[in-house]
Amino acid sequence: MTAYRASDLVAFAGGLFAAAGMPRDRATLVGEILVEADLLGHNTHGLALAPRYLEELRDGNMKAEGEPEVIADRKAAVTWNGHRLSGVWLTAKAIDLACERAREYGTATVAIADAHHIACLAAYLTRATDRGQVLMIVSSDPAVSTVAPYGGLDAVFTPDPIAVGIPTDGDPILIDMSSSITTNGMANRLAAAGKRFPGQWAQDIGGNATDDPGVILGGRGGTLLPAGGHDHGHKGYNLALMVEALSQGLSGDGRARRPTGWSASVLVQVWEPQCFAGIAAFRRETSALAALAHASRPAPGVGAVRLPGERGLARKRAALENGVELYPGIMEKLAPWGEKLGVPLPQLQG
Amino acid sequence: MTAYRASDLVAFAGGLFAAAGMPRDRATLVGEILVEADLLGHNTHGLALAPRYLEELRDGNMKAEGEPEVIADRKAAVTWNGHRLSGVWLTAKAIDLACERAREYGTATVAIADAHHIACLAAYLTRATDRGQVLMIVSSDPAVSTVAPYGGLDAVFTPDPIAVGIPTDGDPILIDMSSSITTNGMANRLAAAGKRFPGQWAQDIGGNATDDPGVILGGRGGTLLPAGGHDHGHKGYNLALMVEALSQGLSGDGRARRPTGWSASVLVQVWEPQCFAGIAAFRRETSALAALAHASRPAPGVGAVRLPGERGLARKRAALENGVELYPGIMEKLAPWGEKLGVPLPQLQG
Repeated sequence: MTAYRASDLVAFAGGLFAAAGMPRDRATLVGEILVEADLLGHNTHGLALAPRYLEELRDGNMKAEGEPEVIADRKAAVTWNGHRLSGVWLTAKAIDLACERAREYGTATVAIADAHHIACLAAYLTRATDRGQVLMIVSSDPAVSTVAPYGGLDAVFTPDPIAVGIPTDGDPILIDMSSSITTNGMANRLAAAGKRFPGQWAQDIGGNATDDPGVILGGRGGTLLPAGGHDHGHKGYNLALMVEALSQGLSGDGRARRPTGWSASVLVQVWEPQCFAGIAAFRRETSALAALAHASRPAPGVGAVRLPGERGLARKRAALENGVELYPGIMEKLAPWGEKLGVPLPQLQG
Repeated sequence: MTAYRASDLVAFAGGLFAAAGMPRDRATLVGEILVEADLLGHNTHGLALAPRYLEELRDGNMKAEGEPEVIADRKAAVTWNGHRLSGVWLTAKAIDLACERAREYGTATVAIADAHHIACLAAYLTRATDRGQVLMIVSSDPAVSTVAPYGGLDAVFTPDPIAVGIPTDGDPILIDMSSSITTNGMANRLAAAGKRFPGQWAQDIGGNATDDPGVILGGRGGTLLPAGGHDHGHKGYNLALMVEALSQGLSGDGRARRPTGWSASVLVQVWEPQCFAGIAAFRRETSALAALAHASRPAPGVGAVRLPGERGLARKRAALENGVELYPGIMEKLAPWGEKLGVPLPQLQG
């Protein structure tokens, strides 16, 4: 058996972050978001990140305590400097604030400069969709570049994710995609396992398309390709520019400062359907879209057309019922932290 | 010589729309936006559309006169029903309103149900960037479907464009991309010319990837592929769901009603950098991004890494200097309308 109770994992991760200095409620929230990512199947961006977060807390690179600095607060627009506080906590807090402001103004934006890493964007989306609101999150790390612009050899961007949560009459649609074809986390994992990408998702130092995830590691000079790849990678390049301009431009903090370390510039946007044509009309339209997608006959070899988030929510339901099977290696890396910080390991369920 | 003065083309197109019943200022504005598309090189979505717009006006499918119905007006969120008034005029008017509201609230959204077609999204972007504001436009036609969801055979979506205008210290970044690899306009043009797509941008009725643009025409049952194609088309599928949910869901009018004819659901979003970290910080960050993209060494066979809009703005400057060379066939199709409506044709410049 390798399955854990989700609540045990949250308690364990929360216990670790609290023992590392975070206020208890904040530590628990970070544990919840990381475990939510694992529940949804985004297992490169769930508890797999916890050991690195604990190192960052230990080394003072992630600040355990304190509040964000309010740079501007203007009705439907709020800007914070996160000063390397937990990006997970800041993002959840920003979403709650944007949801509240959107109730009054119809739409609202919170921009966050210099947060620490924000983990899995999909894991935040139901915070808004459960309230019947629409949420978009974009995020970039201005200290890192692994993704080339279309037609270029030198990396300029991070994978630059865009996430959108969309209420329907049934399950919400949970979009979480990178502007690049794949992510740094996936490249690292496949390279460590000696595996290849399933497509030509990167290019080597000379610009040749390749399925070798190792080209971005160890000074080999390769880059991840923007969505569309060598054929139509202007699409992913456009998205990367949009994500970095919104997250770094509006927060006022990005690559111009040449930051170092591990950080995130974030933009959270919420729309309140009740201030537009109403939530009933909104759900009617998004449910019609969902039904049309489901009704599209599957191509040969495809079981069924799925909505974004559909498989993740099914996985989550099963894991809440039967336990969470962590990706191999994660608990092994967390166990020494448990010992060091005096937090007992969660028990496997029989 | 096949070059026209841009101002002559605007006067001609404006004259045609006015003669077809539009109020003069509205007719001129529509002429300006269509010619702007041609200036930027988006020549499937410029004056090439004018003959069809004139047919739609003649047949009463595009309403020449009247105001949009205000469905909701709540601080930073405004919703209109366009009742098939010119989508070009409505979109320009919506952008002006959103820019004004964003000055007060920091961000603002205008959603438009049941507009007529809105032409080229790139042509609107400088309306906001010239004011130092950031603009996103998404649009879909809920009566049309040519794009398959990822893994599906049946079309669900229109090409579902996303446009974003981003001020910098120099030229603005002007993003205008479809969620599908290519557009209906391009497929029609290439099919009519007996040409092929440069890549596997469509699929036939059986789901086989193809470069034949004709598969979407005449009941052949093919579909355009979402961005990423058969390799990673979940990207374009995600974007299409985002675009249709924002444009149809918030405006409250979309595929659920099974509309017919030629229409558009639109969402316009404006951010005011002065309400966030300030326009100076915004421009500093976006200019740094632009510089980094330009500094990325070009891949073999690529002249230089360009920013979205860069080639279009250069083309526009040259056309304002040397005249506009219309895509073959456009003036030939407009000439009978000039004769019919008593609007003299523009003169070619020597």
